Amino acid sequence: MRIPILKLHNYLLISIQEEMDDKTAVQFQEDLLNKIHTTGASGVVIDLTSVEMIDSFIAKVLSDVVAMSDLMGARVVLTGIQPSVAITLNDLGVHLQHVQTALDLERGLKKLHQELGD
Amino acid sequence: MRIPILKLHNYLLISIQEEMDDKTAVQFQEDLLNKIHTTGASGVVIDLTSVEMIDSFIAKVLSDVVAMSDLMGARVVLTGIQPSVAITLNDLGVHLQHVQTALDLERGLKKLHQELGD
Repeated sequence: MRIPILKLHNYLLISIQEEMDDKTAVQFQEDLLNKIHTTGASGVVIDLTSVEMIDSFIAKVLSDVVAMSDLMGARVVLTGIQPSVAITLNDLGVHLQHVQTALDLERGLKKLHQELGD
Repeated sequence: MRIPILKLHNYLLISIQEEMDDKTAVQFQEDLLNKIHTTGASGVVIDLTSVEMIDSFIAKVLSDVVAMSDLMGARVVLTGIQPSVAITLNDLGVHLQHVQTALDLERGLKKLHQELGD
């Protein structure tokens, strides 16, 4: 199944579920970039609240999608990163530098509003 | 895979994808009711923009989930119903009476704001 991407005003909202497999992750990457292109979204919030474990492949996809979205002109904020996920990301050496993060979806959207002013 | 349910302030946002099978639909029903219970959400927006076809089972689940959420005290707005889906729902005799609808997610949220005032 594809991961739903919601459009809210100028932003795209995505909630990642724990059970995301590799195929879904790659499809998600493609879908998100296409959606940024078609909607002209200026910001993206990817919510990881439901994710309790992350492997190196998913971490790589996430890190890539942030960089690619950035290239396309859409700012990404990751929200709801759980302690276990933060530990794994750090252990894997995926530092997600230059990536904005926030505690939850509301704060992620607020961050985008403040940064992008729209 | 489970359908992600996003929490935004007092509301829950869900985007249904076309490929939803019967098992996913039943799981979604259970997940949504649990989420309403745990978050105390006062409103729910179910976005159907990506749904181009609907069968009688999914229509029944949707209609049920609206009634059940209402019983639990959460108002549901369906958004983005496409012409083909509207035709099918009407043909199936699923009138979704007393269900609020709106053109897109933004307007659905606005409708909830206006009705619930929060």
